Amino acid sequence: MTAPPTHESHLAAVEALKAQEAALRYDHATLTSMSPDECCANSILTRLRDADVQAKWEKEGDLTSFPGMDFYGAKKNGLGPDKPTDLWRAVQRMPKGALLHCHFDGTVDTRFLLRHALQTSNMAMKADMPLSSKDVLWKATVEFLVLPKGAKKTTTSIYSKDYIPGSWVSFKLARDCFPYPHPYLTEKNGSASELPEAFFPTSPFDAYIHSLMTLTPHSAVPVPTNSKQAWAKFRSTFGVIAGLLGYEPTLKAYTKELILSHARDGISYTETRINFLAEFMVRSDGTYNLSHEEWVRIFIEAVNEVKSEVKDGSFVDAKIIYTTVRFIDNERLRWYLEDCIVLKKKYPEWIVGLDLVGHEDPLLPLKVYIPELLRFKARCAEEGLEIPFVFHAGETLEDGGDADLNLYDALVLDTKRIGHGVSLARHPLLTDIVKERDICIEICPISNQILGYTASICSHPSLLALLHRDVPVTLSSDDPSIFENFGLSYDFYQLAVSSQSTSLGSLKTLARRSLKYTLVGEEVKAKMLEDFDRRWDQYVAWLLKNFGHLE
Amino acid sequence: MTAPPTHESHLAAVEALKAQEAALRYDHATLTSMSPDECCANSILTRLRDADVQAKWEKEGDLTSFPGMDFYGAKKNGLGPDKPTDLWRAVQRMPKGALLHCHFDGTVDTRFLLRHALQTSNMAMKADMPLSSKDVLWKATVEFLVLPKGAKKTTTSIYSKDYIPGSWVSFKLARDCFPYPHPYLTEKNGSASELPEAFFPTSPFDAYIHSLMTLTPHSAVPVPTNSKQAWAKFRSTFGVIAGLLGYEPTLKAYTKELILSHARDGISYTETRINFLAEFMVRSDGTYNLSHEEWVRIFIEAVNEVKSEVKDGSFVDAKIIYTTVRFIDNERLRWYLEDCIVLKKKYPEWIVGLDLVGHEDPLLPLKVYIPELLRFKARCAEEGLEIPFVFHAGETLEDGGDADLNLYDALVLDTKRIGHGVSLARHPLLTDIVKERDICIEICPISNQILGYTASICSHPSLLALLHRDVPVTLSSDDPSIFENFGLSYDFYQLAVSSQSTSLGSLKTLARRSLKYTLVGEEVKAKMLEDFDRRWDQYVAWLLKNFGHLE
Repeated sequence: MTAPPTHESHLAAVEALKAQEAALRYDHATLTSMSPDECCANSILTRLRDADVQAKWEKEGDLTSFPGMDFYGAKKNGLGPDKPTDLWRAVQRMPKGALLHCHFDGTVDTRFLLRHALQTSNMAMKADMPLSSKDVLWKATVEFLVLPKGAKKTTTSIYSKDYIPGSWVSFKLARDCFPYPHPYLTEKNGSASELPEAFFPTSPFDAYIHSLMTLTPHSAVPVPTNSKQAWAKFRSTFGVIAGLLGYEPTLKAYTKELILSHARDGISYTETRINFLAEFMVRSDGTYNLSHEEWVRIFIEAVNEVKSEVKDGSFVDAKIIYTTVRFIDNERLRWYLEDCIVLKKKYPEWIVGLDLVGHEDPLLPLKVYIPELLRFKARCAEEGLEIPFVFHAGETLEDGGDADLNLYDALVLDTKRIGHGVSLARHPLLTDIVKERDICIEICPISNQILGYTASICSHPSLLALLHRDVPVTLSSDDPSIFENFGLSYDFYQLAVSSQSTSLGSLKTLARRSLKYTLVGEEVKAKMLEDFDRRWDQYVAWLLKNFGHLE
Repeated sequence: MTAPPTHESHLAAVEALKAQEAALRYDHATLTSMSPDECCANSILTRLRDADVQAKWEKEGDLTSFPGMDFYGAKKNGLGPDKPTDLWRAVQRMPKGALLHCHFDGTVDTRFLLRHALQTSNMAMKADMPLSSKDVLWKATVEFLVLPKGAKKTTTSIYSKDYIPGSWVSFKLARDCFPYPHPYLTEKNGSASELPEAFFPTSPFDAYIHSLMTLTPHSAVPVPTNSKQAWAKFRSTFGVIAGLLGYEPTLKAYTKELILSHARDGISYTETRINFLAEFMVRSDGTYNLSHEEWVRIFIEAVNEVKSEVKDGSFVDAKIIYTTVRFIDNERLRWYLEDCIVLKKKYPEWIVGLDLVGHEDPLLPLKVYIPELLRFKARCAEEGLEIPFVFHAGETLEDGGDADLNLYDALVLDTKRIGHGVSLARHPLLTDIVKERDICIEICPISNQILGYTASICSHPSLLALLHRDVPVTLSSDDPSIFENFGLSYDFYQLAVSSQSTSLGSLKTLARRSLKYTLVGEEVKAKMLEDFDRRWDQYVAWLLKNFGHLE
């Protein structure tokens, strides 16, 4: 018979359990091998987090905010660079390693595209109905395209009832004549919109187009209440972005800005998924025949230019994951897979993986594409190429539905990473397999919240459940131009502020290991890790210097 | 070297993985030992589910509904007995075993209390401000109490500006003179409220009081957007309910109705948590000195009366879990724990467990109460009593915060079950311990959604994650009078309709094993299981008879 428990023996048993569980977690190795400076920085970050929680998210009597709350609610409450808190500054400054999951056309701030459109003389705009009243602004489908020199545009205003749907008008003219008030500054109950003005374009037209390219809520388009509504709006943004982005000079500038903006946020390496669904984009001269091979050439030129311009070590490299969309048939897929092989042969260093993207719930499941995907594997072997799969899978609320079952197909297809994996933690066997095979799960917490897979980062079905089982997880931004969670600071911040078990050591683990799961050679990887460690030491020194005196 | 995969070998590998994982799940044993009739009933239920999904939750072009959506949204979309679908009928009819987690004062339809109040001649009402305009109706704190005969009430109308806050008025008078329109039927954009009228009390006063006792949204009190807001409203309901319920004749009738309404929903056994925080309730004669011992006596009388009235096997028994609230200090706790021991000694068959309840996030963590809880254990041993702990723990969004850490203390205290455990699946070690020790997790999916711990049952952080690891989980309703998820049909339905991996065999597993985790002796348990199996066979026959011809 054992002795009855005492207060001391109870406390000891609780501490033992906590320690035993902590030893299983992803950050254990980091936390138990920190230098004295890192230990000090670790408590600094915890202190900054606690201060942020008190000052911003758990204010006495405030029932609207909480740590890790929904992204747009959090922004409204001051999350981000406009009102940077110490925690924000600390997270923003942090080296974040690699960004492994972002869609090329959904990554750079859409205001960048608007600025470029303004400098593009033949940029044209069309709508599928006259934009003749404020009411239709968010019902119409609006598109852009750079027309060839001398191409005919209509002179009828797109805002006139006489506008013939689908006819091209001048972008500049449409901008200059925009007859409606600024959509983000509509008066509501006598006061201006609650969202910070600095956050948005100042021209009412720019703000309107910005609103078509982002999910940021405003008075005419409120926050969607579920995944279906969010996806409907999300899908619509890509068609607006396409025409502004798909123009040779913009493409190159955009690629450079993608890399530079990431570098500014502490991301030194990016693997971006480029959607090659459209066969062509627009050349500098306005002709619509810029091929996939040329896009990749432009991407490489942009990367190499940044490499030669940025010498402070904040940028290392960027690569391409070839993607097409899950609504095509197998015949069409074969065309894309051969296209991918052609590009890989031409640019072997640059095409590092293959994925099929799109809304998993309504689109085709991976199982439909097995014949062509297996043929692709055989073709790669034949050609001596290595193009690993990095499939989206489990980005769904379904349990046992096709999107959930994509996880099985992705694993049997030997995917090297999994995009999202929202439903993974419900699969005990698959979770074990993923851990055993060291497959990285690219979790996109803010994207998942905005697209309706979780109410907040705090209730994410897989994020902490996988991390605490030491399943390899990295944080990604997914489509930051559309969600406006640029870089990785927002995602890192939301995790740091909402989880008391998350420390600087945890964030370091996430950042550092993102490099481990990049699809580059071991030599490059080793160099990147070495580079990361050097930058991390500098960061720790910065933390001590800037916040250490308050200890 | 292995042969390259073929389409066939891929499919076989996927099927093998699925089978291997299915074998780990909670419903595997049930699914692999079904009788031919059960197999047939199993496919019937799946067919009814698929039909419901198509007809109600995935309607072409409807972006507002989805299977397992938030409870009030789902009700608005027709979930429930008002427009019963075949799936609803099938789920409602199902024997559901035991309800292990419901708070006594939050269980019976509040309209029952309103009807009783109307029959209680000395029922009085007060408010902390004059209810002199529509605007203050949901700002005021309203309370009820049965006054002793001849007690003085004010004759000033509670709706007059002259009403002195806190003075008692006649309930009947307040009801008869209610000067405001029906709160659920306010005209909005020219049309009546979108909520079904049949669902609510018809008298405007009753509807008003009903709205104070429930979280059901209406035009004046919309759906809360986070856990803090939901809890603020939730907490307020108990004070309104208390005075209507805490009256000897009502208490008894309420207890009978609790049992009977459960029996009507297929629940044959209930362990209800009674909050003994208030020392007294009101006696039949209006004196305010009905003791805890007398409440328990009334409970027992009610149960025994139903036992003698209900002979169809739909009701077996009901027991009490003694609870007090997590804001008292240790000294006060000792009083309650001794009170619990007194009641247990007096009614050993009826007091089956102990819990501390309340909002875990802001209230005191278990670790504060360790000294008294250990003393209670020693006292029980001394007295030869067995009063197991069945603690609430992990009902939180926090990770690593006090409410999350309650899980450690509860396990070290040797809790027999865990209430909620929302954050449990993030703890790999604790999850394994819970499974090993066969500790049942009482998950309350609809409560968790309404109180802001998950956006929908589909993204619940622990429900499917634990079930699919075969951690013992039962479904519970928590506070159905306040949420209006009466019985267990709503919770079972939401799970069935939202998870394609959930079949009749899964639901049977949940229902049957709820009996296994009751806190009664092994003999009683064996009888209840035998009884369940008999009723289950009848249910299967009913399913085949009513829906089998469509196969």
